[in-house]
Amino acid sequence: MRSFRLALGLRSHPVHVGSGLLDQLGELALAEGLSGRCAVVTDHNVAAHYLERALQSLRQAGFQPVAISVEPGEASKSLARLEEVFDRLIDAEMDRSGAIFALGGGVVGDLAGFAAATYLRGVPLVQVPTTVLAQVDSALGGKTAVDHPRGKNLIGAFYQPRLIVADVTTLATLNEREFREGLAEVIKYGAIMDAAFIDELERIMPTLLQRRTAELEAVIHRCLAHKAYVVERDETESDLRTILNFGHTVGHALEAWAGFGRYLHGEAVAIGMNAACTLSCAYAGLAPAAAQRLRRLIEAAGLPLDLPEGWLGEDFKRAMQVDKKRADGGIRFVLLEELGKATLRRLEIDTALSGLR
Amino acid sequence: MRSFRLALGLRSHPVHVGSGLLDQLGELALAEGLSGRCAVVTDHNVAAHYLERALQSLRQAGFQPVAISVEPGEASKSLARLEEVFDRLIDAEMDRSGAIFALGGGVVGDLAGFAAATYLRGVPLVQVPTTVLAQVDSALGGKTAVDHPRGKNLIGAFYQPRLIVADVTTLATLNEREFREGLAEVIKYGAIMDAAFIDELERIMPTLLQRRTAELEAVIHRCLAHKAYVVERDETESDLRTILNFGHTVGHALEAWAGFGRYLHGEAVAIGMNAACTLSCAYAGLAPAAAQRLRRLIEAAGLPLDLPEGWLGEDFKRAMQVDKKRADGGIRFVLLEELGKATLRRLEIDTALSGLR
Repeated sequence: MRSFRLALGLRSHPVHVGSGLLDQLGELALAEGLSGRCAVVTDHNVAAHYLERALQSLRQAGFQPVAISVEPGEASKSLARLEEVFDRLIDAEMDRSGAIFALGGGVVGDLAGFAAATYLRGVPLVQVPTTVLAQVDSALGGKTAVDHPRGKNLIGAFYQPRLIVADVTTLATLNEREFREGLAEVIKYGAIMDAAFIDELERIMPTLLQRRTAELEAVIHRCLAHKAYVVERDETESDLRTILNFGHTVGHALEAWAGFGRYLHGEAVAIGMNAACTLSCAYAGLAPAAAQRLRRLIEAAGLPLDLPEGWLGEDFKRAMQVDKKRADGGIRFVLLEELGKATLRRLEIDTALSGLR
Repeated sequence: MRSFRLALGLRSHPVHVGSGLLDQLGELALAEGLSGRCAVVTDHNVAAHYLERALQSLRQAGFQPVAISVEPGEASKSLARLEEVFDRLIDAEMDRSGAIFALGGGVVGDLAGFAAATYLRGVPLVQVPTTVLAQVDSALGGKTAVDHPRGKNLIGAFYQPRLIVADVTTLATLNEREFREGLAEVIKYGAIMDAAFIDELERIMPTLLQRRTAELEAVIHRCLAHKAYVVERDETESDLRTILNFGHTVGHALEAWAGFGRYLHGEAVAIGMNAACTLSCAYAGLAPAAAQRLRRLIEAAGLPLDLPEGWLGEDFKRAMQVDKKRADGGIRFVLLEELGKATLRRLEIDTALSGLR
């Protein structure tokens, strides 16, 4: 087990990464001062593999857990599902001392996290991410949200968990596509802030794809440490934290334009990182050879690079404009000056799109 | 105008109390760094009197305001109304820089405040309270919430405004009952932390009931300063802030038991303060003469003292037990050791109820 502490003043909390940590969930939570009634929010897929082990560990540590399982998939990030979670918490007579455990991927983390942020004006939250994407990215940093019919993550809160427990053995049951999409966010950390990590990933990618736990633990810990560095300096994304959106401006637009579900988030981010490489060469001085290295690494992870046929049109442009990170009259892109060094550039949308043509 | 700054680290903000401040709303908001698109959330009653003036002031300061008006009354504190507010904010293309102004009483402040806390994970909030209750209590301290069918304020967030602007001239249009209910919270501050304020209120109550702006400004400023003192020391109600619930344990139960609407909140709190006086004499050493003084002051404000016929039964007991401030196996009451000095006492519910019989 590798552990560190996210330093956020009163909202500081421990982060644990390791093998088999699901069976230590109860004792790790107890060590943070949690106890009594609690709820484990999960989805039906994750529940089939891991719910019983989580409940068992919690019971052994003296908790009285109830399970709340939702349909897998983005559709569960709705105000309607959130209301059902509230109903179940009230049914279980959960009071302010009762923690909510988010056992699952990004959807579960966002939904359960926002429920914890708003039930009785906030109850303790424990993130137990079970996908690569959630372990290296969404579980840490306090972003929680549900979707609105007109946009993703439009309703949410910044709400820090009391504890993060990432058990890398839970990654074994992901299907190939789900596993690989998470590597897009892994590569992202190298691209924006750790050139040596790019070297390392080039070297170990074949082993990583075999999901060897030793490599997974090291890689996920390194990503979390990078994200922690950023979040500690800019919790609410007013400045530095924006660099974590590398590849996401085009990625989000692509997800919205193609209809959610066609591309997994990490796949859209991979394509977005390729686009951001092109813009980085044109507007931030990135060497073409460096851009090529990053593209080859994305390919080695089995991720797509190219925007689909017919992407360039008014619909795509509109999708880019609704992204909530836009600055008035243009879009702020995260670009690379070199591998491991990100920068922000405001580009007119037409300039950006023609650069990608 | 009287002003002070609520000291909460990064969430510190100014509080202004005065006459005619509605016409300075735009410039006061501008001085806090707000600008551009914004939304004024209000209810139909308040809108009829004050919306145009607020919009006018905002436009003169260069804002582009949209108005969102809801039905008056507690029923608007629902997830369904909240969703409508989100729809309107998206219609108006509000981004993260766009402030939400809550123009109205406690319902509007709670609904608009929770919308501001959760739209795009948080946008700037300005509280513009227009009732006594909201000016002396609910606008300050960051509590926001909507109701759940099974309980008030079950879904919400602690979210501090960027600015509070209390214009005491807006109190002129309150009906007599609404004006007087706010005085219950005014008297509460004297009871729990300022014995000299009780003397003062005994002296000026007749003038206060005539709503003379000079007295109103002084009284509301004094109450806000007291609340600020408490909130600065315990923002999320883990300890000291509990004393603000003096009179509220029985008050909340009475509201729930009688059906929301029969008693105004302040009326229920007045009756609850009388009950808390009785328990204070029995369990916290309050002198009977002091309890009598407080009761006479409540009466002088035109507020009720007595629990209604038939209150003592299983339904009332259940209503007291669901109050979310309960501690396991008993109820933590805010009691008085003397006028101006509050204390916490855990009482078994049957003990408390028989003391009130």
